[in-house]
Amino acid sequence: MVTTAKTKIGVLGASGYTGADAVRLLARHPGVAISALTANTHAGKAMGEVFPHFFALDLPALTEWETVDWTALNAVFCGLPHGTTQEIIAAVLKANPAIKVLDMSADFRLRDPADYAHWYGHEHRALALQGEAVYGLTELYRREIAAARLVACPGCYPTAVLLALVPLVRAGLIDAHDLVIDAKSGVTGAGRGLKQNTLFAEAGEGLSPYSVATHRHAAEIDQEIGVAAGVPVTANFTPHLIPMARGELCTCYVRLNGASADDLRAALERAYRDEPFVHVAKKGVMPRTQNVRGSNYVQIGVFADRIEGRAIVISTLDNLVKGSAGQAIQNMNLMFGWPETMALEQIALFP
Amino acid sequence: MVTTAKTKIGVLGASGYTGADAVRLLARHPGVAISALTANTHAGKAMGEVFPHFFALDLPALTEWETVDWTALNAVFCGLPHGTTQEIIAAVLKANPAIKVLDMSADFRLRDPADYAHWYGHEHRALALQGEAVYGLTELYRREIAAARLVACPGCYPTAVLLALVPLVRAGLIDAHDLVIDAKSGVTGAGRGLKQNTLFAEAGEGLSPYSVATHRHAAEIDQEIGVAAGVPVTANFTPHLIPMARGELCTCYVRLNGASADDLRAALERAYRDEPFVHVAKKGVMPRTQNVRGSNYVQIGVFADRIEGRAIVISTLDNLVKGSAGQAIQNMNLMFGWPETMALEQIALFP
Amino acid sequence: MVTTAKTKIGVLGASGYTGADAVRLLARHPGVAISALTANTHAGKAMGEVFPHFFALDLPALTEWETVDWTALNAVFCGLPHGTTQEIIAAVLKANPAIKVLDMSADFRLRDPADYAHWYGHEHRALALQGEAVYGLTELYRREIAAARLVACPGCYPTAVLLALVPLVRAGLIDAHDLVIDAKSGVTGAGRGLKQNTLFAEAGEGLSPYSVATHRHAAEIDQEIGVAAGVPVTANFTPHLIPMARGELCTCYVRLNGASADDLRAALERAYRDEPFVHVAKKGVMPRTQNVRGSNYVQIGVFADRIEGRAIVISTLDNLVKGSAGQAIQNMNLMFGWPETMALEQIALFP
Amino acid sequence: MVTTAKTKIGVLGASGYTGADAVRLLARHPGVAISALTANTHAGKAMGEVFPHFFALDLPALTEWETVDWTALNAVFCGLPHGTTQEIIAAVLKANPAIKVLDMSADFRLRDPADYAHWYGHEHRALALQGEAVYGLTELYRREIAAARLVACPGCYPTAVLLALVPLVRAGLIDAHDLVIDAKSGVTGAGRGLKQNTLFAEAGEGLSPYSVATHRHAAEIDQEIGVAAGVPVTANFTPHLIPMARGELCTCYVRLNGASADDLRAALERAYRDEPFVHVAKKGVMPRTQNVRGSNYVQIGVFADRIEGRAIVISTLDNLVKGSAGQAIQNMNLMFGWPETMALEQIALFP
Repeated sequence: MVTTAKTKIGVLGASGYTGADAVRLLARHPGVAISALTANTHAGKAMGEVFPHFFALDLPALTEWETVDWTALNAVFCGLPHGTTQEIIAAVLKANPAIKVLDMSADFRLRDPADYAHWYGHEHRALALQGEAVYGLTELYRREIAAARLVACPGCYPTAVLLALVPLVRAGLIDAHDLVIDAKSGVTGAGRGLKQNTLFAEAGEGLSPYSVATHRHAAEIDQEIGVAAGVPVTANFTPHLIPMARGELCTCYVRLNGASADDLRAALERAYRDEPFVHVAKKGVMPRTQNVRGSNYVQIGVFADRIEGRAIVISTLDNLVKGSAGQAIQNMNLMFGWPETMALEQIALFP
Repeated sequence: MVTTAKTKIGVLGASGYTGADAVRLLARHPGVAISALTANTHAGKAMGEVFPHFFALDLPALTEWETVDWTALNAVFCGLPHGTTQEIIAAVLKANPAIKVLDMSADFRLRDPADYAHWYGHEHRALALQGEAVYGLTELYRREIAAARLVACPGCYPTAVLLALVPLVRAGLIDAHDLVIDAKSGVTGAGRGLKQNTLFAEAGEGLSPYSVATHRHAAEIDQEIGVAAGVPVTANFTPHLIPMARGELCTCYVRLNGASADDLRAALERAYRDEPFVHVAKKGVMPRTQNVRGSNYVQIGVFADRIEGRAIVISTLDNLVKGSAGQAIQNMNLMFGWPETMALEQIALFP
Repeated sequence: MVTTAKTKIGVLGASGYTGADAVRLLARHPGVAISALTANTHAGKAMGEVFPHFFALDLPALTEWETVDWTALNAVFCGLPHGTTQEIIAAVLKANPAIKVLDMSADFRLRDPADYAHWYGHEHRALALQGEAVYGLTELYRREIAAARLVACPGCYPTAVLLALVPLVRAGLIDAHDLVIDAKSGVTGAGRGLKQNTLFAEAGEGLSPYSVATHRHAAEIDQEIGVAAGVPVTANFTPHLIPMARGELCTCYVRLNGASADDLRAALERAYRDEPFVHVAKKGVMPRTQNVRGSNYVQIGVFADRIEGRAIVISTLDNLVKGSAGQAIQNMNLMFGWPETMALEQIALFP
Repeated sequence: MVTTAKTKIGVLGASGYTGADAVRLLARHPGVAISALTANTHAGKAMGEVFPHFFALDLPALTEWETVDWTALNAVFCGLPHGTTQEIIAAVLKANPAIKVLDMSADFRLRDPADYAHWYGHEHRALALQGEAVYGLTELYRREIAAARLVACPGCYPTAVLLALVPLVRAGLIDAHDLVIDAKSGVTGAGRGLKQNTLFAEAGEGLSPYSVATHRHAAEIDQEIGVAAGVPVTANFTPHLIPMARGELCTCYVRLNGASADDLRAALERAYRDEPFVHVAKKGVMPRTQNVRGSNYVQIGVFADRIEGRAIVISTLDNLVKGSAGQAIQNMNLMFGWPETMALEQIALFP
């Protein structure tokens, strides 16, 4: 199952939660060796100092990204902040054009540079690469990802929303212009940076909406729903911060095009019949974040609404796994020809 | 401020969270004496055995409700399960027609007996009392409550939703037929009964929708929005269980009748200008449950949506206080002529 | 009950949790007016921006401490970091020698300047004031506090530990030289400053010891147990960070001087018979932080150990109330001649 | 890696947390097939109804244990309540003497039948089997376990405590008669049964000691420390319920026999040098439950005390993995000749 020479992996931005979850999963992947870890603010430290739960792993020390020998690597996972990401990836690919890049930032997700400039406040600085990048939602773009050099892994919210809605929009079962998406995320979605609102005493035992009607993930949702619908779309998207570390659940309120909730469920079942990680819940079964914690699975449920002609589609995943590092590894498996589920078969940790 | 003879209060169902929060607040109310506490399954026990946080209070022991001398009481708070409530209250009022009843159950909230029968699965068994009961949403029915003998305090969700939406529907600013209400509640909303899904290990670190499109509080919301709109209404209502003990937040997605989000905010500010407990957040300020925990306050915010012609109205309260026991005490204050805020001025406990 | 002219209060360091809890309680104290709030890093902001749960209060804006008119104040609560506190209080008392100071920092708690220098890493810079300061553990030093100008309110852990152990040491019932104190605190004990280990995703769903055998509160415990014993004492003291916001519980393992656990309980009951806030749990009743959350109460329980000749004394309180702001207000009440319980009678918020 | 014929496993008591965690791990074990799952109160249900996070697994339906064909099984994991366990295991072994039994209950842990009768309130009903059973603390009894038919896996607390203290007692470095063990556990330690004190609203945001000086795990600790010391021992053991689902941390206060804390650490390092799952933290590194959540690892740290001649030994593990199901699988791997770490290499899930 494992070739003698392991594929050499670098993780850039390994001191964030996304980078750490990539390391957690890659460390047990039989095909790869973690050969470089970068975190500029922690350069020189052992990974186990920055993430003590890695005490049992033998990992390379953290370095600055500028000192990495890219020619020694076969792939990099990039968990850096947006903006700097595009410059670093451009430099990496210049140094080693054969390297494969799994970007977990937002830098290459938006197809339209104007869109990027609008949402991120500056012109894109690696336009050619943006043109090359493939949107890394595995179930929608599997073939393109397998052939790609640079994969822009989607945001956690878009992953949950698009897996729930794209097959329904494609099939014309719902109205793409009347989408209300109430999104809820655990606190790791905000990253490991020090912010007052993610302190335990602030975020615990309470619930707060945030970035109402202004969250950047809306741009990805509009883009991909628009692709599915064939026309530009603007969706409502309203995120809430929930007192839990991991997990995300999107409650999508949709208007039916003559279809029933059962029709929607059937369409999703058809779409995901052969997918290893996307599960459509049986009628009456409630998706919940507990079912997917720590795993690469997505669970989707469909419910009839009280209002005639409307339905409710609920989608849940672990924002750090299928919503980020896990999906990146799933894409890596595709790109290197491994079984798509390799290193990702861990069942949800419940309780 | 306090008359020499204290008003004598009984709390029925004192072993539930709602009853306990009534006791917590009533114990510090200068006008009342807690004279009877009932909990049939715990009869004979001290209240401090059932709720150890009352160790410092000198409270009557728990008894069966059948043994209470109603003629010695001026008012009762009723935190019993629905169904049995109507029979007990009928018996209480028969024994002491002058007693005032603050019912925190669902038994007298629905004006239409057919509605009650539909949602609760049996014919109402105290129809005359249902006709007499006043819906106890203080800010909407203050005058009727002040004169009432039997007040049906609203459910926690309806309190949050109706305070946010009724002024807007009354003013014709939003479409009463396109209301999507995504509701989130802490676990105390499910009561103190033993259920697997409210165990710490099940409800903690996770989030789950429940009673999607079937929750009984929808009936109250339909009813009172319908009163405001002057026509029957069916609203979407989708509750979610959040890993926190107290607190509730409803995100209401509304379609505007030509108005703007600012118009909505202005209308709410007008409606609640003189209200002690309902606060409309300034533009850009986010309501969050942390702001109201343990207090009788409601906080409402209004936001423009990304979708043209839509807005988002967010309302939050503590489900056990303004959503139940606190509002009942607010109503009691009205009924007995005390300042409406008496015993309710506690600021939110944050963190 | 209230004099016409309210006592004017300033709260220094009002942007911390301790300062905020002082404001929460003082805002409902009938004898006082909050006249100044300082927070140098937030000067110019409204208090409701820094602590949104104060939306309903009409409070002075935050200022720099240097701009406060001390002559207009009757008392100040000081929730500043140690070190700077002593300099600011010296300046305050120079400007207004009649002002009363409730210091919630560590600056004036240690009687011996050498002790201070050892634990805090620098010479004390207000030695005369340190000589004047009274250790503000109300139940032990009530008379001195009533007459004091400067009260050094104890740390949260020492409050819990000393109330549990001092009466037992004074009575010679336990060995002051064999004290093992396993202490557990909620995350607010670490303050509102931005630290990685108090992020929700780090501190939640986990438990970690910290400052093992090096925590500064040990100095206060040694000092006051030493006073009670009449000889210098060194106690074990091992704190742990618990995933809850408020609350503290100390499990004290003691060696008996021929006494029994029942003797210990009886001694504590005698010591606290007339105390409004210290409750000795009946035999078999377990103290727990839930019983005191948000309140000024302390609950203490005594248990026989499995090891012959040993017992376990357990003490719990809310670290921000009796462990800090509440005890400071209790002391203020003493210093101004109000009933000691004024503004502090709030029952624990449970759940 | 996998033999063609998989080893057939039954899990008895699969509706409890311990049984479920065995299933979670066994489902990804390459050597085994889960062939039978029992849960008498849920017989007939799919496992995914009882534990929805197993939605992606193809598992046998739950049955009553009486209907299992034991002859078709090679091993059973037993997660049943104590008392009934011994009768069921006796029946199983009678039906299939060649089956291997991994018991996760308390029934076969105590070597002395009088001890069992004392702590569990009735005479042991399978004395011959108790004589045969091996105490399944892998690192202490590896050889015996490899040869055993019936392994009594230790309690979660004893696993943490004994791994920390036995090497120190064996080496004579600490006094076996002065052990104070302050233990903290997450709520899953109490099982999935419906109890008021494990409801989210009761156990959350609070901390409570329980079973002080009466917890049954003390019997195992006494027994095995006694074996190591060569004399009977009585240890203090004081458990506390912590608001987290998984994880356990024991803070052990020990008296040194002339040794230093560094000597203790060195002794532990020697004892566990070649152990895959027991890690001794470097000087100054703090064990914490976050480091082991969901994993089979144990982390132990040693600290000098403030009291001369004393030290503090801290041990942490996941109560459902190394404290129960994981250790049982580790033992199964030994008994069937697989690598000891098989299916157990999962890194801690943090955050």
